[in-house]
Amino acid sequence: MAKKSLEYSNLFAKGLPPASGRWKGHPPFNFIGGHADPDLQPIEGFVESSARVFRKDGRGLATYNMDSGPQGYLPLREFVAEKLARHRGIQVSTDEVLITSGSGQGISLINDVLLESGDTVITELYSFAGVLSNLRRRQVNIVGIDTDSGGMRMDLLASALEDLNQRGITPKYIYTIPTLQNPTGTVMSMERRREMLRLSREYGVPIFEDECYADLIFEGEWEHAIRSLDDANHVLHIGSFSKSLAPAIRLGYAVAPWEVLSQMLACKGDGGTGAMEQMIVGDYFHNHYEDHMEVLRSGLQRKLSVLIAALREHFGPSVHFDPPRGGMFLWIRLPEGVDSRKLVEPAAREGIVFNPGPDWCAEPDKAANYMRLCYAFPSEETIRQGVEKLAKVFHQEAGVS
Amino acid sequence: MAKKSLEYSNLFAKGLPPASGRWKGHPPFNFIGGHADPDLQPIEGFVESSARVFRKDGRGLATYNMDSGPQGYLPLREFVAEKLARHRGIQVSTDEVLITSGSGQGISLINDVLLESGDTVITELYSFAGVLSNLRRRQVNIVGIDTDSGGMRMDLLASALEDLNQRGITPKYIYTIPTLQNPTGTVMSMERRREMLRLSREYGVPIFEDECYADLIFEGEWEHAIRSLDDANHVLHIGSFSKSLAPAIRLGYAVAPWEVLSQMLACKGDGGTGAMEQMIVGDYFHNHYEDHMEVLRSGLQRKLSVLIAALREHFGPSVHFDPPRGGMFLWIRLPEGVDSRKLVEPAAREGIVFNPGPDWCAEPDKAANYMRLCYAFPSEETIRQGVEKLAKVFHQEAGVS
Repeated sequence: MAKKSLEYSNLFAKGLPPASGRWKGHPPFNFIGGHADPDLQPIEGFVESSARVFRKDGRGLATYNMDSGPQGYLPLREFVAEKLARHRGIQVSTDEVLITSGSGQGISLINDVLLESGDTVITELYSFAGVLSNLRRRQVNIVGIDTDSGGMRMDLLASALEDLNQRGITPKYIYTIPTLQNPTGTVMSMERRREMLRLSREYGVPIFEDECYADLIFEGEWEHAIRSLDDANHVLHIGSFSKSLAPAIRLGYAVAPWEVLSQMLACKGDGGTGAMEQMIVGDYFHNHYEDHMEVLRSGLQRKLSVLIAALREHFGPSVHFDPPRGGMFLWIRLPEGVDSRKLVEPAAREGIVFNPGPDWCAEPDKAANYMRLCYAFPSEETIRQGVEKLAKVFHQEAGVS
Repeated sequence: MAKKSLEYSNLFAKGLPPASGRWKGHPPFNFIGGHADPDLQPIEGFVESSARVFRKDGRGLATYNMDSGPQGYLPLREFVAEKLARHRGIQVSTDEVLITSGSGQGISLINDVLLESGDTVITELYSFAGVLSNLRRRQVNIVGIDTDSGGMRMDLLASALEDLNQRGITPKYIYTIPTLQNPTGTVMSMERRREMLRLSREYGVPIFEDECYADLIFEGEWEHAIRSLDDANHVLHIGSFSKSLAPAIRLGYAVAPWEVLSQMLACKGDGGTGAMEQMIVGDYFHNHYEDHMEVLRSGLQRKLSVLIAALREHFGPSVHFDPPRGGMFLWIRLPEGVDSRKLVEPAAREGIVFNPGPDWCAEPDKAANYMRLCYAFPSEETIRQGVEKLAKVFHQEAGVS
């Protein structure tokens, strides 16, 4: 009989996301995503740690989850608990830590456990695109709370909670990135953190605290995590190794009460997070976290100043931004009336990619004249050239629009 | 105000799986899951490969998916394509290969793309518990086709397809493990493979071929994969590194037409599969696949003969089985009327865990008097002791029942 091809599209489930295209390589001027600095990958540190940790624990690879169980490689959980105590003021045992395949998996698991279509959650008005798109896919209502230079405004949070309460709606959580907020780069004061926790208790709404970027404060005192203030169980806390080390290594962590963690574990269903990565990163950071972070932070700080200088030179007064205290991106306001979405295609033709503001906003149109530039990946020279080219695109398009 | 605890159970989504319990360590006599042999982990090979590959490609860790794109680390895809050509008769380019986080992710992604609640799929009557439970969670109807010593029976498959067709039902796929079938250990003849492909074409139903165990044939000629016979697009093919190397390393692969692969990619949404594992395994297997597999196969073959001898000694004529041509488990029939589920608890009290038959069956009660023993992980001495203890439990319980 004829070797007729199957039309798989007839067999597909309904409501699939659009199919992926073929990968075409990194564009020359890459200002998107959370890519890190290739020059700051600690290659020899990884080589040394691999040798040590495979010889110490390599036999354990023979069983699912090694000898550590499904919460993750115990030495890595020990490192997380130590780091949280030393730098974030959080006291937890390794029993309260779950290693995840990137913090994105932590977000998905918390959402799997708590959310159903039609639920409501609160976020910062400008927030992480990955969370916003995950929530929209789940048909969850997002209430975005406006921010100022100190992060989410507590007066607006209080009135939103009260308003929802009066309408009989209990939001499932308040999602916040208090430290080096994504995308605004702000750091929430301790006073606001305390106030958020108070509101969480008053309204019985948990706080979902994402501290993805909290390792990257360049200088000065670090505000402690909201989780450090929580002597009951109101805060679900996640973090990542993508920003402190490398995003191709898929490692993050979640800290949550066992009532929630045990459900997250039941939903995880991935046979465990990759063991080799847990082993190597656990050993490397156990020995080199402080010195690696010092090198990383000063590298990022240098690139940020190059980016700022280039923006001032090539965009002049057309751009506004508050230089952040750390992190790897800059949130930039363009003149009213400019729509950054319209710059995406002409920029791409010049080999430039960036994040248009609307993707990073609970109410997309409110961020039409914003864009996010990540500066960790491109070299200083590429940042200079890329910003110059992007300014040309901007002036051309803004002139037309 | 009072620091009242939140009751998270009030906030949980409906229909969650039962919460996980605390992990209690590996039991002393562990005959479950797909654990591998700790003595056969190639520690020095991993150390050597880590050093080489981090120095060669470590800078790439700085970007999501390195410089390979979301289908996975290119040298690992090259290894997969070469292995499939050399050992499975499959000719594919690296563009047709997707690296997954374990073959379990491959199964989930194919199901995400093709299945909706109420759909029908065909499997072997006795089949992989992970697939069966995934299908049940999705509320998919499972039609189990009985097997004999040559795997799924094609006469029964033909009549099931015809019967479904007459009822207006097009199954979404025929799931099969043709080579070292899980749990029966059978190898399907080339004649049956050709016949399955013919039926697939006749009824327009794709074949989902799971070759998780196909690396583990101990001796003799290897039947080629069904995918090797497919000159159109009727076969979705997956494989794993869990069995050939280690299950704590979360790596598998899928080979599928781009129409399907591009949808699987869109559903993957995990920021990529762990890069360090892809790099190290890619390098290690590129250099050592043949010699590692030779050592692994002869180790498994030795353990299988220890297991068979212990079963004959301690169970005598109460057990029946067909010694498989390879793999890491034995599918054992107990006398009619024995229910292996009733042995689980008393065995656990003796520190023994095994897989009761019903979990591995599309119609659970049909496998009540079966059990699956995995022999890769326990030492030869532990196999002997464990089988002796299990026989005591069996004689006690079977005598009572």
